Amino acid sequence: MRDFTFSNITKIIFGRGVEEKVGSEAAKWGRKVLLHYGGGHIVRSGLKAKVEASLREAGLEIVELGGVQPNPRLSLVKEGIDLVRREKIDLILAVGGGSVIDSAKAIAIGVPYGGDVWDFYAGKAKAEESLPLGVILTIPAAGSESSPSSVITNEDGWLKRGYTANVMRPKFALLNPELTFSLPPYQTACGVADMMAHIMERYFTNQTDVGFSDHLCEAALRGIIQYAPLAVREPENYEARANIMWAGTIAHNDLLGMGREQDWASHDIEHELSALYDIAHGAGLAIVFPAWMKYVYKHNPNRFVQFAVRVFGVDQDFYNPERTILEGIRRLEEFFRSIGLPTRLQDAEIPADRLEEMAAKATKNDTHKLGGFLPLGQKDVLAIYELCR
Amino acid sequence: MRDFTFSNITKIIFGRGVEEKVGSEAAKWGRKVLLHYGGGHIVRSGLKAKVEASLREAGLEIVELGGVQPNPRLSLVKEGIDLVRREKIDLILAVGGGSVIDSAKAIAIGVPYGGDVWDFYAGKAKAEESLPLGVILTIPAAGSESSPSSVITNEDGWLKRGYTANVMRPKFALLNPELTFSLPPYQTACGVADMMAHIMERYFTNQTDVGFSDHLCEAALRGIIQYAPLAVREPENYEARANIMWAGTIAHNDLLGMGREQDWASHDIEHELSALYDIAHGAGLAIVFPAWMKYVYKHNPNRFVQFAVRVFGVDQDFYNPERTILEGIRRLEEFFRSIGLPTRLQDAEIPADRLEEMAAKATKNDTHKLGGFLPLGQKDVLAIYELCR
Repeated sequence: MRDFTFSNITKIIFGRGVEEKVGSEAAKWGRKVLLHYGGGHIVRSGLKAKVEASLREAGLEIVELGGVQPNPRLSLVKEGIDLVRREKIDLILAVGGGSVIDSAKAIAIGVPYGGDVWDFYAGKAKAEESLPLGVILTIPAAGSESSPSSVITNEDGWLKRGYTANVMRPKFALLNPELTFSLPPYQTACGVADMMAHIMERYFTNQTDVGFSDHLCEAALRGIIQYAPLAVREPENYEARANIMWAGTIAHNDLLGMGREQDWASHDIEHELSALYDIAHGAGLAIVFPAWMKYVYKHNPNRFVQFAVRVFGVDQDFYNPERTILEGIRRLEEFFRSIGLPTRLQDAEIPADRLEEMAAKATKNDTHKLGGFLPLGQKDVLAIYELCR
Repeated sequence: MRDFTFSNITKIIFGRGVEEKVGSEAAKWGRKVLLHYGGGHIVRSGLKAKVEASLREAGLEIVELGGVQPNPRLSLVKEGIDLVRREKIDLILAVGGGSVIDSAKAIAIGVPYGGDVWDFYAGKAKAEESLPLGVILTIPAAGSESSPSSVITNEDGWLKRGYTANVMRPKFALLNPELTFSLPPYQTACGVADMMAHIMERYFTNQTDVGFSDHLCEAALRGIIQYAPLAVREPENYEARANIMWAGTIAHNDLLGMGREQDWASHDIEHELSALYDIAHGAGLAIVFPAWMKYVYKHNPNRFVQFAVRVFGVDQDFYNPERTILEGIRRLEEFFRSIGLPTRLQDAEIPADRLEEMAAKATKNDTHKLGGFLPLGQKDVLAIYELCR
C-alpha cells in the first residue's frame, strides 16, 4: 500500500427535503452568496425559488449567475470571478450537477488568485486558497459534491482539463434523492457510467497488496450495478435513487483510491470526445472504458480476472484467464447497453474521422503519457479510439 | 435508506514514518500540548522520545499524562481535565490505542464543560465543544482515531459507558503500520474482532434498501478476513498490517453506517464482561457476537443468509435458510478461533456465576432495552450470556 493523506471535510446532509436546510448551512460561511446554476430546470422545478427562500430567511443576500453548460466553460468561470470580486461575495452555492459544481470550484479558487484561473488547469499554479463552497446536488454522477476535483473546458482550442486540490472540497453538500426523480433515464445512466468509471480508474492499479480497498471498490461497483437498472426503470423509486446518489459521492471522494496508484487514462481519452462532440461525459466513458480495458489487460491479467470474477460474478476459467477477462469486459459492455448507454462511437452517432486528431490532442502530440496503470502514448490512444468503433 | 448527516473532519496521514510529522500537524492547533498515553511500551519502543523531539522542534511545549489503562478510567480523565485547565493546554495528543484516545476525548470535552464529565456518558448532557485532539495510533482496533465515540469506565460501580458526539472526532490522526509490528498475535486478533464487530453492529439492521452500504460492509469484512491471519502469523508484514490498520479506521468512522439503523447490543453486552473481568474488548466481542447472532437471527433470517453467503461464501441451501445461517455463524466462530480468539466464556477463563448480575446491569434492571435490530430486555441478555458458555 502506498503512503497517503486523506482529508475530506465535506459535511454531507442526505435525505428528503434537505435542500431546505441550505439557509442555515450557508449562513455559517458568510452573508452574501453567489447562487450558481445551469439552465431553467431548477427554475421550472421550483427548486430555485425554494433555495432562495431558505437563503433569504437565513438573512443572506443573493447574487445569481446561471448559464453553466455541460462541459463548463472557462469564459463563464471568469465572468463569475469578476462578479464575486465586484460584489464582495462571501461564499458560492452551486445548485446542479457536476458541471455547475466544477464551475463553482473554479470560481472559488480563481477569486483569491492573482493570475489567470486557467493556470491551475494548465498545471502552471497550485491553489492554496478557496472561497467556501456549498452544494445542492441534482445529478448524481461526477461526485464533485465532495471531491477535490474540477474539470473545465477552455473554448480557446476546446481544451478540457481537470484540476485537483483539497481546498476545493465543498464545505457542505445537500443530497436529496427526490431532486433526481426528474432525471431522464439516459442522463441517469450517464451518471451511473461516470461513477463506475471513477471507481474503475482507481481499481486498475499496479499497486500490490491493496486487497482491503480492492474489496471496497468491487463492493461499490456491485452496489451501483444492483440499483442502476431500477433507477433507470423507475425514476421515482426513492430507494434506488438514494443508493445511486450516495454511491456517486463515495465513488469519487477518493476514499476508495487511498494507498493505490490510480489510472485516469480513460477519463483523459474521453475528455477529447466530449470536448469535440459535446457527448455526455458518462456516455463517452461507456464507450472508452471497455476499449481501454481491451487494450491494456495483458499488462496485468490477474487484475482483470479479479474484476470479472468479483464484480460480475463470471465463472472463472482457471485454465484460460483471457476467456475470463474478456467475459468480464463483455458483461460490463452488456450492463452499459442494458441501461441504454452507447458502447461504440456509432451508437452515439460520432464519426470516426477525427480519431488521429483526438489522439494527438490527448497526448499533446505524443509528449504526454496518459494513465498510471500502463502509460499510453499517441499510438496507444489511437488504437483505443479504434477499439471504440 | 434513512436520512443522515455525515461529517468526518479527521485528516488521516498514513504510511511509514508519519509519526515524525506530529510536530508540524500539532503546531496548527496550539503551542502547549498534553501528551496522553498508557504505559511504558511507547517509552521502550522509542516512540515517545521521537514524538517529543518532533513536538519540541515545532516549538511546542509538552505536559504529559501517562497511565491510561485498558478500559480507561474516569478518575484519570478527571485528573487530565484538571491538569489541562491548570496548565492552560491548547490541544491533546493521544499516543496509543483506543483506550488512550477515548480517555483523551473525554478530557477534550470535559475541559470546556462546566459540569461533571460523566454527565455525557450518563446521558445527562450533550457536548457542544471540544479541545482539539490529535492521535498517533499504535493499536488498530477501536477506530477511535477518526470516530466520534469514546468509552469510559466509571470505577464507582464499574460502569462502562460510551458517548458519541461529532465534536470529539480528532483533528488529525497519524497511522504508521510499522508501529503495530510489535503487537502480539493475541492483541492483533482482539483488534480484528473489534473492527469486525464495528461493521457487524452496523450491518445487522432492519432498514431495507441499504444495498449499497450492505456491499461496502461485506467488502470491509472480507478485506479484514483476508489480511488478519497474515498479520497474526507475520507480525512484521507491512502490507498485512497496513490493510488491517486502514480497515480499523474505515470500520468505525461511521461511513459504513450511514442511512442504516444500527444495533450495538453486542457492544453493550460485552461491556459488562470487560468491566467485570478486564478481558480485552475484542476477545469479549468474539464471545458475545456469535451468541447474539444465534439468539436474534430468527427476527430477520434473510439478513443472516446474506451475511453467510456474501461474507463467508457459504454455499446457500435455498430450501433451508437456517442451515445457511448457522453455517455462517459457525464460520465466523471458526475464523475467530483460527486467529487465536476465545469464542466461549470458559476459553477466556471467565466463570459463569455472575451472568444474572451482568444481564441486570446491562439492562439497568430490565428498564433499558439493548440494540436497534431486536431490542433486548434482561431475560434476552441473560439468554445470550448463556449462549456464551
